Amino acid sequence: MEFDEVVIKRRSVRDYDASKEVTDEQLKELFELVKLSPSSYNLQPWEFIVVRDKENKKLLKACANNQQFVEDASATVIVLGSTNPLVHAEEISADRVKKGTMDEEKKKKFEENVKKIAENKPEAMLWTAKSTSLSIMTLMLAAENMGLATCPIGGFDDECIKKEFNIPEDYEIMMLITLGYKSEKQSERPKRYGYEDIVHLEKFGEK
Amino acid sequence: MEFDEVVIKRRSVRDYDASKEVTDEQLKELFELVKLSPSSYNLQPWEFIVVRDKENKKLLKACANNQQFVEDASATVIVLGSTNPLVHAEEISADRVKKGTMDEEKKKKFEENVKKIAENKPEAMLWTAKSTSLSIMTLMLAAENMGLATCPIGGFDDECIKKEFNIPEDYEIMMLITLGYKSEKQSERPKRYGYEDIVHLEKFGEK
Repeated sequence: MEFDEVVIKRRSVRDYDASKEVTDEQLKELFELVKLSPSSYNLQPWEFIVVRDKENKKLLKACANNQQFVEDASATVIVLGSTNPLVHAEEISADRVKKGTMDEEKKKKFEENVKKIAENKPEAMLWTAKSTSLSIMTLMLAAENMGLATCPIGGFDDECIKKEFNIPEDYEIMMLITLGYKSEKQSERPKRYGYEDIVHLEKFGEK
Repeated sequence: MEFDEVVIKRRSVRDYDASKEVTDEQLKELFELVKLSPSSYNLQPWEFIVVRDKENKKLLKACANNQQFVEDASATVIVLGSTNPLVHAEEISADRVKKGTMDEEKKKKFEENVKKIAENKPEAMLWTAKSTSLSIMTLMLAAENMGLATCPIGGFDDECIKKEFNIPEDYEIMMLITLGYKSEKQSERPKRYGYEDIVHLEKFGEK
């Protein structure tokens, strides 16, 4: 599909055809685009648990305010943000050195900065939230382009999900994203603030 | 452009043709797509300061570790996240009630939840970081589709930017995004972790 059309057509969908499945091939196609999202220092702090099993979706629904569409969607994706930026740091800096985009001075600065993020838990949370959310937007648009509908969910019981899905301590749950085939008669798109509302020119308050 | 092609072609660009300009018409086209990004409760906590004036770009560069490409890009966008979810709350809930997607019970729950976020500063920061970053990804992809290159910048002096660009207290700077015409010979794409690395099936650690 044309890019603009994907953005314009994407809506948050809460009514799914529970009988349809999302295949491994579709997931692979989807996440091979998701992975191309940019991230802070290219550290890619994102991981995804794709929940398709009926019983597991029920467990997830129970951790997500019992919202029925978590179960009805073909899959619900648990988006994890790693709060430890050190995990990928060595591999990613070695890759950049090899490709000639990082010299010794830059590498030192990179290591210092990454260490600083790792040592400060609230900063690490913000750091992973930003990069991971970039990948989530790619996921939702790429899904739309594949004929799949999504809905981002921000409200859930972290501890419940962490326990039920064996999530290690150094990951936080950033969002849930339902993924499936929509069955709904689409409601009218909710209000969006437009260019005049959201864009300032040069300084805050100037149009 | 086809959606997949946009995602695959997008790269973070640090070398710009400083002689080329981004017009008001291009900005309008860009942000009319950006605004269609989803956000928590549809509260759209994003605002953007587009800096194109040479002197202002120099000010911004000085607040951003003197990175030359902040000045060379046709524009650098200061992405603001509102940390006060109450600002749009009334208008957005009224819109949903009008369109029949929110009843009185849902409205009450919405108001409670939004108030809770507003009262907790670290939570409000995370809340705005996630929604605003969704809009940033749309911005970067939409720019690519328009033939414009971007680079997200996460390292800068907040206080310096807030002062120079008259940014009110209840906004935080989420990222800077350069926007312009690339001049660089593209380096090799840095390593991305693939499907097998980032996707778990059903529970953490299962493939």
